Amino acid sequence: MIKKVLVANRGEIAVRIIRACKELNIESVAVYSQADKDALHVQLADEAYCIGPNSPKDSYLSYTNMISVATLTGCDAVHPGYGFLSENADFAEMCEECNLIFIGPSSDAISKMGIKDIAKQTMKNAGVPVVPGSNGIIESAEDGVKIANDIGYPVLIKATAGGGGKGIRVARDEKELRHGIQITQQEADTSFGNSGVYIEKYIEDFRHVEIQVLADTQGHVIHLGERDCTIQRRLQKLLEESPSPALDEAKRQEMGRAAVRAARAVNYRGAGTIEFIYEPNGSFYFMEMNTRIQVEHGVTEYVTGLDLVKEQLRVASGVPLSVKQEDVHLQGHAIECRINAEDPEKNFMPSCGRVETYLAPGGPGVRIDSAVYQGYFIPPYYDSMVAKVITYGKTREDAIETMKRALGEYVIEGIKTTIPFHQRLLQHPVFESGKFNTKFLKKYPLNEQS
Amino acid sequence: MIKKVLVANRGEIAVRIIRACKELNIESVAVYSQADKDALHVQLADEAYCIGPNSPKDSYLSYTNMISVATLTGCDAVHPGYGFLSENADFAEMCEECNLIFIGPSSDAISKMGIKDIAKQTMKNAGVPVVPGSNGIIESAEDGVKIANDIGYPVLIKATAGGGGKGIRVARDEKELRHGIQITQQEADTSFGNSGVYIEKYIEDFRHVEIQVLADTQGHVIHLGERDCTIQRRLQKLLEESPSPALDEAKRQEMGRAAVRAARAVNYRGAGTIEFIYEPNGSFYFMEMNTRIQVEHGVTEYVTGLDLVKEQLRVASGVPLSVKQEDVHLQGHAIECRINAEDPEKNFMPSCGRVETYLAPGGPGVRIDSAVYQGYFIPPYYDSMVAKVITYGKTREDAIETMKRALGEYVIEGIKTTIPFHQRLLQHPVFESGKFNTKFLKKYPLNEQS
Repeated sequence: MIKKVLVANRGEIAVRIIRACKELNIESVAVYSQADKDALHVQLADEAYCIGPNSPKDSYLSYTNMISVATLTGCDAVHPGYGFLSENADFAEMCEECNLIFIGPSSDAISKMGIKDIAKQTMKNAGVPVVPGSNGIIESAEDGVKIANDIGYPVLIKATAGGGGKGIRVARDEKELRHGIQITQQEADTSFGNSGVYIEKYIEDFRHVEIQVLADTQGHVIHLGERDCTIQRRLQKLLEESPSPALDEAKRQEMGRAAVRAARAVNYRGAGTIEFIYEPNGSFYFMEMNTRIQVEHGVTEYVTGLDLVKEQLRVASGVPLSVKQEDVHLQGHAIECRINAEDPEKNFMPSCGRVETYLAPGGPGVRIDSAVYQGYFIPPYYDSMVAKVITYGKTREDAIETMKRALGEYVIEGIKTTIPFHQRLLQHPVFESGKFNTKFLKKYPLNEQS
Repeated sequence: MIKKVLVANRGEIAVRIIRACKELNIESVAVYSQADKDALHVQLADEAYCIGPNSPKDSYLSYTNMISVATLTGCDAVHPGYGFLSENADFAEMCEECNLIFIGPSSDAISKMGIKDIAKQTMKNAGVPVVPGSNGIIESAEDGVKIANDIGYPVLIKATAGGGGKGIRVARDEKELRHGIQITQQEADTSFGNSGVYIEKYIEDFRHVEIQVLADTQGHVIHLGERDCTIQRRLQKLLEESPSPALDEAKRQEMGRAAVRAARAVNYRGAGTIEFIYEPNGSFYFMEMNTRIQVEHGVTEYVTGLDLVKEQLRVASGVPLSVKQEDVHLQGHAIECRINAEDPEKNFMPSCGRVETYLAPGGPGVRIDSAVYQGYFIPPYYDSMVAKVITYGKTREDAIETMKRALGEYVIEGIKTTIPFHQRLLQHPVFESGKFNTKFLKKYPLNEQS
C-alpha cells in the first residue's frame, strides 16, 4: 500500500482525502497558501507546508512546488482532489517522472478525455452515444456555420479544453454563432491556452445524469449507478442526488454499461465520472468525462456503501477494487446540497469573511463534509463552496425531509450562504415532483420574492 | 398522525426527538430548567418553556409541570426520551388520564417490567430464559441466605425498582450477602421509594447483549437484532456496537425470538430493549427490559436503516410499523462511543463548564448526536454524557478505523471529556479481537499510564 500521500488541494476535499488516509493508516501531507495557514486541512494532516502566496497560480497550481514538497517529505503518492491540478495531464506526467504515484488515471487518459473533441471521437468509436456535431475542432467560422446548418440550430460552441461549465456558449442563429465562435476562441485561449472550439447540437430539454465508474489495474471496470445533477445555475451544479428520479433499473444498467465502455476505451484507472445528457425519451449522449473524484461523490457513497476515496487509494496502490459489479446495488436515496459562501439574495455574490458562529447539523442520515469552523476566515481567493450537506433516507421524500431538517439547524453566521436558496428549492413543488430539466432555475429563479 | 409533541427531556435525546418530529412535520415543544435556558434543544424546538429550577426533581421530574405545559400548548403527545420520567408508570398513566398520548408502552407494561422481580417471573412464564434466583422479593436476610446456599455464591442482590446499573450489589459469601441486603434495601428505599430486593446467581463471565424490539398497536412485534454493550465501567455503558462480535445469525434469531416473546408477554407497544446476559457458551438469560428508547439506539439505526424515533412516533399515532420482520437485515457494522464530560485521568470525575472550542467530526460513516456547541456551558446538575459519536463501516474493523479517525478530529476544549479514554480503548488488542466480557475495564483500566 501507499505509505504517505501529498494532498495537493485545499478546502473540504483536502479534508476528505486526509480522512480516508487516516482510516487506511496512510500518512498525509497538506500544502497551503499563505491565506490558508489556519485552514482545517492544515490542522488535520500529519504534516503541512506552505507552498506559496494566495494566488492559486503561485500555490495550488504550482507543479514544481507540489512535487518539491512531495519529494522532500518522502511521499510516495499525490492526490490532486478536484479542480486545480486534478485534470492536468502534464502534472500527472511530471508525477510519474518523479516516481510519485499520481492518484488518478494515466496522463494519457487525462489528455484523451481533457481534449473534448478527441474525447468525443474516442467515445463514438467505443460505441458510446454522442451528440451530433462537428467532427472535432472546426477549422473556421465558415466550417462552423456549415455544420450548424446541417444539424440545425440551436447549437453549442464548446472549447475543446473547457469543462465544468467553462468555455461553452449557445448560438441560436448564424449571427450568434459567428460572434460566439470568436469570443469562445478568445476566452479559451486566455483561460486554457488552447483556442480550439467545436460545434454540437444544443439539446434544450435534458437532465444532467452522470455515471460513477471505478477501475483498477487488474482490468476490472465497474459502475456505481448514477447521480442526477440537473439542478444547476449557469452550468454550476447546486444539488445532486442518487438515484435519479428519472431512471429505472434497466436504463441505469444501460447507461452503466456505456460508461464502462467509455472508461475501457481510455484504459481508465481509479475513480471517474461519465457525464451524460439525458433526454425525457430516455436517449442519452456522452457529455464529458471527469477524470478525478467529483464534488458530489458522497451521494454515491451513501447509496452504495462504498468509500470512493479509499477505493482510489487502493487502486493507486495496485490493490484490486473491494467490490464486484454484481455486488453493487443502490439502496435508499441520497441528496447533496452545496453550501456556498454566496448571497443568494444578491445574485449569488461571493460572501467571504469570518465565520462568527458555526454549528453543523447532526443526527441520523446527515453527513457533513466541510472545512469550516467557528472563527475561520473564508478567504476570497478560492472556490466559494464551503460545505456539503449530504442526507440519506429510504426514499427521495425521506432524504428531502432530512435535508430540510438539517439545513434548518445549520448555523453559519458572519457570512452569507446559499442555505436559504436550498431551503426554497427543497420545498418547491416541481423539485418535489422530480420532474424537471436543467432549465429549472431559469424558470424558477427562487429569489427571496418569488 | 400526532400533531404536536411535548419533549419531556433535555440534552442530546431531546434534540434527537425534535429532529424526528421535524422530519415528520410534527410540531415540538421543549421544556427546560433554569440551568438549561441556552440549551440546544430549546433553540431547535418550535416552542420552549421553562418548567422549574435546576434540580431535576423540580423540573425534568415534575409530572405536573410537564403535563401543564403539554396541555397549555395544545400538545397531543409526550415523548419522555430516556431517564427522567421515561420509565415512570405513574407519569405514563397521568398522561393517559389527561388525554395525552404517552410515547411509549402502556403504564401497565412499564410497571410489569419496572418491578424487576415481577418482570423476571413474567419472562419465565413467557418462556424467556432467566437467571436462577429467588422467586421474587426476599422476605428476610435469612430467606436470602437460604437461596444463595441453593444456587451457590457469588450472588447478586438487586433492588426490584432499580435499573441502569443502580441498586445492584455482588455478594461472594454469607457475610457480604447479609450486609449487602441491608444496604441495598436502604439505598433502594431512598432512591426508588421501594426497598424490595431479590437474589440471583451472579454470572461472572458474560457479555451484555440486548435486543431491540418494536411493536405497533396492530399486533406486529419485530426485533432489530442485537447491540453489544459489554464495554462498561461500573455497570455504565461506554461503547456499544451492532452486530455483536460474539453472535452468529442463528443465535441472533434465537435471541430475537425470545425478545419478541418477552414483548408480547406484556402487550408491548413502541420501542423497547430486552437486555440479556450472554455467556461464552451461547446461553443467554433475561436481565431486564428498558421500556423506552435507549441511548445506544443509533447503532441499530445504522445497521438496519430504520429511524427508531420516527417508528415510535408512528406507533404512538396508531400507524403500523414501516417494516416487517422478514425485511430486517443487519448490514455493515456500527459503533457508538459515549462522550462524557468527565476526566478519564481523574477517575472519570465530572468536568462541567464552558465549551471554549467545539468542532464535531464529519465525513463518511460518522454520525454525531450532541447538544453541545461552542460557548455552551455544561451544567453540573445532569447526566455527564454530552455527545455520542456513531460510526459505520462494512466491517467491524472499518467502523473502528472510522471511529479512531472521528475521535482524532473531535475538538472539545474548555472541559475534559472521555475521548482520550475511548482512543485507548479502540486500539487495545483485546478490544480489537472482539473477545472480552463485562470485566474488560476492570482487567484493563486504560489509565493514561497503563
